[in-house]
Amino acid sequence: MYFNLSRSFVIKGHICHTPEAGRLEIRENAFAVCEEGICRGIFDEFPERFRNLEMIDCSGELILPGMTDLHIHAPQFAYRGTGMDYELLDWLDQVAFPEESRYADTAYAEAAYRIFARKMKQSATTRAVIFGTIHTESTLILMNKMEETGLVSFVGKVSMDRNSPPELTEQNAREAAKEERRFITESIKAGYRRTKPVVTPRFVPSCTQELMAELGKIRREYGLPVQSHLSENPGEIELVAELEPEAAFYGDAYDRYGLFGRDGNTVMAHCVYSSPEEIQRIKANGVWVAHCPSSNMNIASGIAPVRRYLEQGIRIGLGTDVAGGTSESMFRAVTDAIQVSKLYWRLVDRTAKPLTFPESFYLATKGGGAFFGKAGSFEEGYAFDAVVLDDSVEPSARPLPVRDRLERAFYLQLDRQGITMKIADGQIII
Amino acid sequence: MYFNLSRSFVIKGHICHTPEAGRLEIRENAFAVCEEGICRGIFDEFPERFRNLEMIDCSGELILPGMTDLHIHAPQFAYRGTGMDYELLDWLDQVAFPEESRYADTAYAEAAYRIFARKMKQSATTRAVIFGTIHTESTLILMNKMEETGLVSFVGKVSMDRNSPPELTEQNAREAAKEERRFITESIKAGYRRTKPVVTPRFVPSCTQELMAELGKIRREYGLPVQSHLSENPGEIELVAELEPEAAFYGDAYDRYGLFGRDGNTVMAHCVYSSPEEIQRIKANGVWVAHCPSSNMNIASGIAPVRRYLEQGIRIGLGTDVAGGTSESMFRAVTDAIQVSKLYWRLVDRTAKPLTFPESFYLATKGGGAFFGKAGSFEEGYAFDAVVLDDSVEPSARPLPVRDRLERAFYLQLDRQGITMKIADGQIII
Repeated sequence: MYFNLSRSFVIKGHICHTPEAGRLEIRENAFAVCEEGICRGIFDEFPERFRNLEMIDCSGELILPGMTDLHIHAPQFAYRGTGMDYELLDWLDQVAFPEESRYADTAYAEAAYRIFARKMKQSATTRAVIFGTIHTESTLILMNKMEETGLVSFVGKVSMDRNSPPELTEQNAREAAKEERRFITESIKAGYRRTKPVVTPRFVPSCTQELMAELGKIRREYGLPVQSHLSENPGEIELVAELEPEAAFYGDAYDRYGLFGRDGNTVMAHCVYSSPEEIQRIKANGVWVAHCPSSNMNIASGIAPVRRYLEQGIRIGLGTDVAGGTSESMFRAVTDAIQVSKLYWRLVDRTAKPLTFPESFYLATKGGGAFFGKAGSFEEGYAFDAVVLDDSVEPSARPLPVRDRLERAFYLQLDRQGITMKIADGQIII
Repeated sequence: MYFNLSRSFVIKGHICHTPEAGRLEIRENAFAVCEEGICRGIFDEFPERFRNLEMIDCSGELILPGMTDLHIHAPQFAYRGTGMDYELLDWLDQVAFPEESRYADTAYAEAAYRIFARKMKQSATTRAVIFGTIHTESTLILMNKMEETGLVSFVGKVSMDRNSPPELTEQNAREAAKEERRFITESIKAGYRRTKPVVTPRFVPSCTQELMAELGKIRREYGLPVQSHLSENPGEIELVAELEPEAAFYGDAYDRYGLFGRDGNTVMAHCVYSSPEEIQRIKANGVWVAHCPSSNMNIASGIAPVRRYLEQGIRIGLGTDVAGGTSESMFRAVTDAIQVSKLYWRLVDRTAKPLTFPESFYLATKGGGAFFGKAGSFEEGYAFDAVVLDDSVEPSARPLPVRDRLERAFYLQLDRQGITMKIADGQIII
């Protein structure tokens, strides 16, 4: 439904983006140019050399880069906001696993993923890295639904062959690898333009070394990215140390099998308790950290030291982590990240300055967008992803400066009511 | 607009309330009876003795007690969600005080309070304790607007005569007291049924002892409640210790002038850093604590030890504290309170169990409602405040138990789209 456009246009409005972490650039009633899906820059005057392009006039509205959600579980969407009185490992047993088991039933997957995809489409997210379940057919249904939304996404069939309920445990590493290959082959065969597979070991506690080794081979063979979880919770880290005594640290248990950056993109969710060695390896290998502040609170994990990651130049973006997080709203993730960083500063480390709004905005756009290449900014040469917001849905007693309107739009979560247009990779999808 | 009803009816639906902290009672498709504004209890079968009353059928929808917001600043509503990169004292100077100064202009107050009142009306809040500004006329406009909403509220003209910008500093204690008396007299003269004045020293740093003494006299004379701020931030507490060396602790600076509970209702916002002596006095004097989790995060104050307050039987409820908090949503306050309590447990004190959903729900309803007397519960004899929610606005792939629907409604903030009816003190106001 989004193939009917040239992916070339000029759009006018208050253009807001962060070319660097913390540097918010606002260009009031300026013109951004998209040519065949690629941004050609921002211009204060109408750029005459693009006069043949369609002109989209959103004067007075806010135009932001689309948001990248680096970590979200599609099958958990159905029960988001329930069972929140549990901690991580109990929550998995009592809430997450029973629900994920339902996706053995493709009819359920069809119904549930339809809702998920619709909400993703309505959100401010233009790119996402998504967990499915172990079920190949259902995860293919998820890919199909995501492709229909027009978002750009990586979708993973989850691999897990130990320490999980029987109905969510694959028979053995060989069978799991076979199924992963089938998933990849089928998803490539489907010819999706915007939806690609991603290798997805759930996390170390639920993957044997044999399975890890197989997944490492598959990743290299198909040149795919990797997504998983890392150092979210102290109990989980202890468990990994017991299960994998040969690994130097949690992340090393991925790295030993080629599932931790280096020659391929990897995103690891959480990294709340990464040791100095692990942080060093994350940095050296170019692994992305998906910071998930809502989930950090809901599952009582703690708070990831985002300021340190920024200072050290580690690749980092934000994830909603539904259903550890309760909302798919990346606007909410941006303000949650600021809020928890303030508590981190106050309660944990007074030398770790809280995130500012422009810094958190950066994480949600260019920071996470980098996982997809050049995305999340209106700089020349970037993929054109944008969200247009009419923030007058929340009236104001006096005219607010654009800078305040932007910040307010995030704190009031105007991505729920205020989006008037959404553009992903040059295509208008709302 | 709400006087055309008998304030007597039977309402049917999934009735959810917490007669005690942490004990959630759910009565599916049961009948709650309101007779002349007072709850006559919940019945599983239609209660024949009330067959003459109007029947309101909300079968399948969720019926909750109305929420009580124990702390909100009406004049700060206009800039909520902006300037959030400041800490408390800077934020007051840079953001809060300049905006509050605008309320010298009654035309501005008229426009801004119209928006505030409309949002309060649309919210799940049925009762609120509200700060105005030092401006008598504008605060009377606020009262008028609140009365029109049908909510039950206390509204305070703020008193402040030191350490504030000149345009927000009253001339001296005598003049401030005179103005406070005029405010009270005028607001009583207006004959509001649901909107009453509350004595409102802003906080110790901005009130001289002379002013405190005058306000203490006024409180007794008119039998009014008191609202103020207490022990929010370490810097603020140091300042109070310097300014009031004779006070044994921050709260004592109120208590010495009869502004700290005892023979009248007092609510103190925050209490993040209350000392053991202060906590003891809060308890002994029956002072209410307004816990404001969103504000605790945004202004980087820290986290109030709510578990301790509950254990000690201290009176406590929730406040949104707009614009330290960014949203007037009490649903958001309920989940924020749970989230920060989880971080408190994880980062500050592993013996302070996180709040559960039923506990936080209780704080928002019966906990804070007690400031108004018997409110916030469907027990017999309680004022009938209710919110009816159609949570199907967020579709689900499978039928959810009512318990899950309730929790989900809070985490997804369905007070923004899902309210189909609101009843305050027996009157249907939405």
